Amino acid sequence: MKTSLGAKTLIYPTPVLLVGTYDKNDQPNVMTVAWGGVCCSSPPCVAVSLRKATYTYKNIVERKAFSINIPSERYVIESDYVGMVSGKKENKFLKTGLTAVRCEHVDAPYIEEFPLILECRLFQTVEIGLHIQFIGEIVDTKVEDSVLGEGKIPDVEKVKPIMFAPYNSMYHGVGRLLGPAFAIGKKIKAA
Amino acid sequence: MKTSLGAKTLIYPTPVLLVGTYDKNDQPNVMTVAWGGVCCSSPPCVAVSLRKATYTYKNIVERKAFSINIPSERYVIESDYVGMVSGKKENKFLKTGLTAVRCEHVDAPYIEEFPLILECRLFQTVEIGLHIQFIGEIVDTKVEDSVLGEGKIPDVEKVKPIMFAPYNSMYHGVGRLLGPAFAIGKKIKAA
Repeated sequence: MKTSLGAKTLIYPTPVLLVGTYDKNDQPNVMTVAWGGVCCSSPPCVAVSLRKATYTYKNIVERKAFSINIPSERYVIESDYVGMVSGKKENKFLKTGLTAVRCEHVDAPYIEEFPLILECRLFQTVEIGLHIQFIGEIVDTKVEDSVLGEGKIPDVEKVKPIMFAPYNSMYHGVGRLLGPAFAIGKKIKAA
Repeated sequence: MKTSLGAKTLIYPTPVLLVGTYDKNDQPNVMTVAWGGVCCSSPPCVAVSLRKATYTYKNIVERKAFSINIPSERYVIESDYVGMVSGKKENKFLKTGLTAVRCEHVDAPYIEEFPLILECRLFQTVEIGLHIQFIGEIVDTKVEDSVLGEGKIPDVEKVKPIMFAPYNSMYHGVGRLLGPAFAIGKKIKAA
């Protein structure tokens, strides 16, 4: 039996992505978003949705670049804090002790301590409603060597990313392995 | 020490979303996407990116509606299969034994067995590259009563959604609770 809850943004899981930008004074800033994800394979693109009122919104419009920083679960408290305060009021790098490093290819900072970084240049801006969607072209991916697995591919069980559940408002880690993609479904395909 | 992997779509986690549509003969179809997520709170919207070659792409263009069906982990094999074959060639509902039910508010079918359903009407189409992004306005959310927790809010530990790790190409379940959002970060805010 299903209950109707009305129009709710109930997607499980959503990611926890920290968006790194510079402001007009070259001050690095970072904010947490859960409204985002991959949106194209070629060119490789990621989308993040922000409200116009955020400091990061202005920074992306001005600098036309941002980084996506994927935390491991040991940084869940820092990631939550970064989503709660504005870079207009606080220097979030100073407050968290996280280290801002200039990206190699784009005009944005990334978080040294995080295991997985995407350097993005602004590719497209989509006006939706309360949120504006920035589509960034991924120009490079940087991965901490300690989370690389076989074939130099990041191992998700070593990265230990965080998932966010809207409405539930809880953070969870990665759970048990359910199986390899493009493989376990062959059982039905062959039937 | 970080290694550069080039331009890769490396977001962890991405969701496993089954997109339900009708074709021009009213045949229900479903496909799996990981390139998607919430993109706006008001109006409440979800984005899914598809290649033009897919059967679902044509169906959404024609019917201007789709459902988002969030599987629980017991349906991981069905979810993988649905992402591997085209609705042009196979009736995926017949083959999996999943049940197609007509949505209440939009011109699309949903999957009866899945715990969490979003009914979406096509709101905006964004040409990006290989993938086209469909932004759907969420007009209703339907939740299986057995996965509701306190305050009639879905409990992510009962929904048991699946996360997908690109490149790693593995499915994982939900892991341990790391803490409540907009709460654990207050420790730093107050410092």
